[in-house]
Amino acid sequence: MGLSFKAIVFDIEQGQNEVVLNETQAASLDLGLHDRIELAFKKKKAVAIVDYSHKAVPKGHLGVFWEVALALGVKTGDCVEVKPAPRPASLDAVRRKLDGKALDRKEIQSIISDLMAQRLSTAELAAFIAGVHTRGLNVDETIALTDAIVASGERLKFSKDGPILSEHSIGGVAADRTSMIFVPIMASMGFRVPKTCSRAISSAAGTADVMELFCPVNLPADKMKRVVDKVGGCLVWGGAVNMAAADDKLIQIRHPLHLDPKPLLLSSILAKKKAEGAQFVLLDIPTGLGVKIADVEEARLLAKDFIALGLHLGLTVDVSITDGSEPLMPVVGPVLEARAVLETLQGRGPKSLVEKACRLAGISLSMVRKVSHEEGYRLAKQRMDGGHALKKFFEIVEAQGGNSDVKTDDLVPGEYHYTLEAKEGGRIRHVDNRRISRVVRALGAPEDHKAGMKLHALKGDHVEKGQPLLDLYATSKDKLSFGIEQLKTAQPVEIEKIVLDVV
Amino acid sequence: MGLSFKAIVFDIEQGQNEVVLNETQAASLDLGLHDRIELAFKKKKAVAIVDYSHKAVPKGHLGVFWEVALALGVKTGDCVEVKPAPRPASLDAVRRKLDGKALDRKEIQSIISDLMAQRLSTAELAAFIAGVHTRGLNVDETIALTDAIVASGERLKFSKDGPILSEHSIGGVAADRTSMIFVPIMASMGFRVPKTCSRAISSAAGTADVMELFCPVNLPADKMKRVVDKVGGCLVWGGAVNMAAADDKLIQIRHPLHLDPKPLLLSSILAKKKAEGAQFVLLDIPTGLGVKIADVEEARLLAKDFIALGLHLGLTVDVSITDGSEPLMPVVGPVLEARAVLETLQGRGPKSLVEKACRLAGISLSMVRKVSHEEGYRLAKQRMDGGHALKKFFEIVEAQGGNSDVKTDDLVPGEYHYTLEAKEGGRIRHVDNRRISRVVRALGAPEDHKAGMKLHALKGDHVEKGQPLLDLYATSKDKLSFGIEQLKTAQPVEIEKIVLDVV
Repeated sequence: MGLSFKAIVFDIEQGQNEVVLNETQAASLDLGLHDRIELAFKKKKAVAIVDYSHKAVPKGHLGVFWEVALALGVKTGDCVEVKPAPRPASLDAVRRKLDGKALDRKEIQSIISDLMAQRLSTAELAAFIAGVHTRGLNVDETIALTDAIVASGERLKFSKDGPILSEHSIGGVAADRTSMIFVPIMASMGFRVPKTCSRAISSAAGTADVMELFCPVNLPADKMKRVVDKVGGCLVWGGAVNMAAADDKLIQIRHPLHLDPKPLLLSSILAKKKAEGAQFVLLDIPTGLGVKIADVEEARLLAKDFIALGLHLGLTVDVSITDGSEPLMPVVGPVLEARAVLETLQGRGPKSLVEKACRLAGISLSMVRKVSHEEGYRLAKQRMDGGHALKKFFEIVEAQGGNSDVKTDDLVPGEYHYTLEAKEGGRIRHVDNRRISRVVRALGAPEDHKAGMKLHALKGDHVEKGQPLLDLYATSKDKLSFGIEQLKTAQPVEIEKIVLDVV
Repeated sequence: MGLSFKAIVFDIEQGQNEVVLNETQAASLDLGLHDRIELAFKKKKAVAIVDYSHKAVPKGHLGVFWEVALALGVKTGDCVEVKPAPRPASLDAVRRKLDGKALDRKEIQSIISDLMAQRLSTAELAAFIAGVHTRGLNVDETIALTDAIVASGERLKFSKDGPILSEHSIGGVAADRTSMIFVPIMASMGFRVPKTCSRAISSAAGTADVMELFCPVNLPADKMKRVVDKVGGCLVWGGAVNMAAADDKLIQIRHPLHLDPKPLLLSSILAKKKAEGAQFVLLDIPTGLGVKIADVEEARLLAKDFIALGLHLGLTVDVSITDGSEPLMPVVGPVLEARAVLETLQGRGPKSLVEKACRLAGISLSMVRKVSHEEGYRLAKQRMDGGHALKKFFEIVEAQGGNSDVKTDDLVPGEYHYTLEAKEGGRIRHVDNRRISRVVRALGAPEDHKAGMKLHALKGDHVEKGQPLLDLYATSKDKLSFGIEQLKTAQPVEIEKIVLDVV
């Protein structure tokens, strides 16, 4: 009993499936604003939310936004069949969660499959996330959710010989490029390390953004598997692999709401690890002022949940709790971080990065071999000192289609720069990750790779009045002044109790 | 530090303020999908959510949807100033409610003022409503919310002499046109009854839709006041008066989510009564199978909450709990209901309507005069029998700008009709409000006034096999067959335990 409408495609991305009907016609069809309809074109189907138009869409026409045009392959002038969509079954499950009920496996699966089929609106998903935030998920619900998220995307399968490792940080630390050292160390020892990483969300650079300065990171799952089969490891962008796809959609809703309920954090991370094919996972929880987890006690509780959920999912999980209260390296921004990573692999980078990577590699080694953390650390250090990690890094770069000839001198920041000097002498008591990210983003990062910041002093250092505290780098005068303006408000480096001013 | 963009207006209604930026440019400005920006044009300002475009909106241009174009008065080609908007302060309050905290008056006000200024996205409002659903609101929070909603719109002020009455049903009963009898009865006794009513949301007709067949109902607040000052009463559409404006916006979010938390229901209704200027409010809670409140105990609890909240707001509230388990009149649909109302005022309408209206009028009278409910009922009945209510009704119709010459013969339903006969004999055990609404909407109501249903038998009646159960009316063959098809699935009249079929 579908009606036929002539499509008018609007090349506009809305974040959900939306179409536009003429208001008078919608009313005569008893379709309210934001009601759901089912669309069919050739053999494809989609569900979309209805917006109204007064004039732009005449009667008999259907405005089609980008997501729907893509899903159906519709072009302006095509005839699309329309009928009212039934209320998605998963809405009852969302309601039950809001009412404090525990959901069964089938209900959780219905939410994830309706999410994937775009049958739930942003508002309905927000209500679900609010429900999880207020009511929580029990262990069974969290396992069911993680399984449903794993099933929503691609899944890597490797041959059985030898363990498959992964390392993952829950994030928040500026310039934490541990994975770029960890992966080559472990792969150089013969382990397989299929690592997916993220791009910057609110930081100045994600591992994927920095790796991209050496090689392509947008690899589909089959290409990713071939790289790992060939050289043992990879560092690719998780968004391109389409693993745990439902999780990406949930994050799109969670992020603007600033809601990050623990069960969603747990399932989000472990679903990705499971989809990567990992068997042994080392999770890093950076802790301290200005990151997600403020104190060690909270980190320990979270660690126990990760380990317990891992067991249920067939993953062996260890957790490292690290100090995350300041940037891991004294340089922030894609190009500067890439340069520091390369220098580290060459044995002349910041000590903090090589220390953290080798410590984490040591813990991972103790998970798969009968060695102590100390012994593991020593073995990892050898791979660095002997140049094996550097060699493996460039093998990975080449296997991903990149250029193994990159030199540190190719990695230079923008030519416009500014130095902030200490207005008063004293001891530095805090260097704030988030405020640094804000400044470097104002300079143009992560899109502008050459935007960056160099820190001349870190927490605990003594500085004299007039001594340089940090440098900013930008590729244009305008961007530099945006960055300086942000620096004035953000004040990322605090000296004792006196907050710095920029004159 | 705003940037200037050339507007491209899209005549598309989105239900919230949205604009479209070129994706590449948005990225270079560090604006993510669904980030919030502040717009300025001439002396007007607005906040909007960012969508992305790949080609439709070139760099330097800004796609502007209907709501924003209206708010700013922008036309295609106009230059609009854009800058990032700060995170609305009320989001912290929303988060605190989700965390189970009680909000103070200022926090509640910040949510309502950000809602009115379109600074909160649909997803954020959905999270707030989910928070109220799961965490509730205490008495102080509910009072603060009601006050904030009252302050968000127009407010009627009448001179002090004599009490100002109102009557309001929480809804759900088909063909419940009590207000159209109650208002003229009370106004004919010299009371002022400034009644706002709603249009159909999911029913076949709201009181505003039926009243509109006699006179205009889209009256602004000052016109509404003049009508009440002149003739004592009115029946106007609440949506046009712009009273308790924030409530309309909250309902727009609550309705598709099917979330109707009690504190929002309480504040929604009492805010409207307070804005109307009412001092004595009679609330009707229809109870039974197929309406919001299923049993009398639940209705009593809700009644107590209404009375208590009323006290805090300076309103005297009484509550009637009535049987709402079937339509109040045996006719459903705008024209048929209008005709039955007129016949009732003329002394020859359905007994159920005159009974309910006079009972409710009796209770209202006992609130303002020292009379018993029975004595009040008798006095109200006299106003009906003496023709005073009919006379007052047409005074109201004329004062609202309508035609007092309307005859019952002018009010005829569509010429295409269909009769459903009983497939088997038996006693009617249930006549379902919601399913009737669905059928009459399929026939074209409320937009098509002449769509309707006549019921030949109600709950408790005995019918023989082949006896007519109900008639459908429509203005076209197509609409009639949509209605018949819906009748097949909806089966609104149940005979004993046998569910009817349409052959």
